[in-house]
Amino acid sequence: MEFDLIDAIRARVNVPRTDVAMGIGDDAALLDVPNGRQLVACTDTLVAGVHFPAVAAPEDIGWKSLAVNLSDLAAMGAEPAWALLALTLPDADTAFVERFAQGFAELARAQRIALVGGDTTQGPLSVTVTVLGLVPRDLGLTRGGARAGDSVFVTGMLGDAAGALCLLQDLQESHPPRRASAGREAAGGRVAAFRQHVREDADASLLARLNRPEPRVAAGLALRGVASACIDVSDGLLADLGHVCAASGVGAEIEADALPISSQLAASFDAQACRDLALSGGDDYELCFTEPSARETEIVEKLAHAGCGVTRIGRIVAGSGIRVLDANANEIEIARAGWEHFAR
Amino acid sequence: MEFDLIDAIRARVNVPRTDVAMGIGDDAALLDVPNGRQLVACTDTLVAGVHFPAVAAPEDIGWKSLAVNLSDLAAMGAEPAWALLALTLPDADTAFVERFAQGFAELARAQRIALVGGDTTQGPLSVTVTVLGLVPRDLGLTRGGARAGDSVFVTGMLGDAAGALCLLQDLQESHPPRRASAGREAAGGRVAAFRQHVREDADASLLARLNRPEPRVAAGLALRGVASACIDVSDGLLADLGHVCAASGVGAEIEADALPISSQLAASFDAQACRDLALSGGDDYELCFTEPSARETEIVEKLAHAGCGVTRIGRIVAGSGIRVLDANANEIEIARAGWEHFAR
Repeated sequence: MEFDLIDAIRARVNVPRTDVAMGIGDDAALLDVPNGRQLVACTDTLVAGVHFPAVAAPEDIGWKSLAVNLSDLAAMGAEPAWALLALTLPDADTAFVERFAQGFAELARAQRIALVGGDTTQGPLSVTVTVLGLVPRDLGLTRGGARAGDSVFVTGMLGDAAGALCLLQDLQESHPPRRASAGREAAGGRVAAFRQHVREDADASLLARLNRPEPRVAAGLALRGVASACIDVSDGLLADLGHVCAASGVGAEIEADALPISSQLAASFDAQACRDLALSGGDDYELCFTEPSARETEIVEKLAHAGCGVTRIGRIVAGSGIRVLDANANEIEIARAGWEHFAR
Repeated sequence: MEFDLIDAIRARVNVPRTDVAMGIGDDAALLDVPNGRQLVACTDTLVAGVHFPAVAAPEDIGWKSLAVNLSDLAAMGAEPAWALLALTLPDADTAFVERFAQGFAELARAQRIALVGGDTTQGPLSVTVTVLGLVPRDLGLTRGGARAGDSVFVTGMLGDAAGALCLLQDLQESHPPRRASAGREAAGGRVAAFRQHVREDADASLLARLNRPEPRVAAGLALRGVASACIDVSDGLLADLGHVCAASGVGAEIEADALPISSQLAASFDAQACRDLALSGGDDYELCFTEPSARETEIVEKLAHAGCGVTRIGRIVAGSGIRVLDANANEIEIARAGWEHFAR
């Protein structure tokens, strides 16, 4: 089924790029990298039941499988160019593929990324996407450039996706599927049950953040030459800022009261839960970055042009590790640490 | 487990390349593409039980997951440069990863390909590798350049991998695992049973061809500027040469008696089975190519330097489709068509 399915998806994506000398249809793609650019490459796998809820719509799986990879490109300050898609499916389910392709294509078109290769195989549902981007030589954003005294910023809002997952898990515990093999009908039933359950728009908004993350590509481009270090928040702020600190040989202090919490999250969780979700919840795909020159006003303006808000949440300090401080600058003990807590 | 496992594999691969500005350890890799080169990119997934036997050794899975992708680069005439590895595992089985890494690294080192990115996730065993290679601009070998009158060649021997799979399947049918969930112990038992069963070296040699395919990278490089079209034989000669014919708008005639059959295959199967395995068996990862100028002697010499034999097996003709001819130029009816027949 290999060629036909991937070609059907490619036809839907339909992003013509003059730098694709040979796309899908040969043993490999032939791609033109402009002089003066570095190639930026990453790959991420989504497995059913681990990285997206069993109730996820195929469109959302398609969108998210590309989004999580574009988020990595964004964190490097790279411009998306090409994608390869490896899709493993239990059976040649054309309806699933059509809907998956629709979600994948929607984001691919918005980001002008061409699908240039792929493979479809039979097996338990999982999706591996590889994305390739371009960045002017030596302007890529990395994790290793944070220095003591830098400010720490984060785009958008934190904790929404993890909040949605909590709501979803609560629901699944109160409405367990009748049998594990019940498959799509049961999943559809659970989706319907969830939709009934969503009495407040707030919950629907959180769910959209979980299922349709918006990779901060434009923000990443705006941060070239501005940020001293950058990472995307996929595993949770503490875990990901921790990677920046480790790579840069520094520590950080986060002001708990400064964490950007959406009104939707605040409507569903108490203040402490919101803080913990913002600190440790994964899957937000915001950018966390450091900046050395106290140009907060300029950064807010730049990122507003790039379509997102941005909040200063703390500072880089000498040493190692991350401390979370309350309004009186006293350290807060944080029990939760990382995405796993929410995911399983 | 993500970072540590991939980093452990990278450490084992340990192919230093000056064109890797940033490898594993950031959100994405930063890679330098030399001026005048095109980037060549492809991805392939191997799923347990579909693309490798349940009894396969982890080392062999590691080797083969890279080999099948390098074979696609070879078919484009590309030089391997960088790889990304997405590994999905049922559990964080360090021993499995160590052995997988050993096989992967063995081939990566031999081909000087650096592991620059990856992702490990929890789920049913599968491996997706993306490889990136380089080719001088407009020298990439494609499927679309075959013309009526060209000779058709194939490297090495055909049918060995499919022959091994037949032997393995016969064995599994006569020694079924006691229960589906018996897992590695049962698989180990089946391997032992198979090894006992292999009384003749011939069978072991066929099995090696299935588990440790040698991608024809050097042959692909030697064919730049020589071959008019090229493809790797992954789905079976008829299927893959069929892709060349379709892309080039031509047909082909194959001389059944010219098909290169190894003495090992001939020792285990009768002549007709050998022919059918050579025509329709997948997983050989030889190169099938066309050549317009009757330079057979020169090609044999070039490919001998590249470490493999080569055989002229037929010609490109006007029209479409592939005819297989006997010694009297009469068409032979071929019932089997494609890898699926052998794989399931």
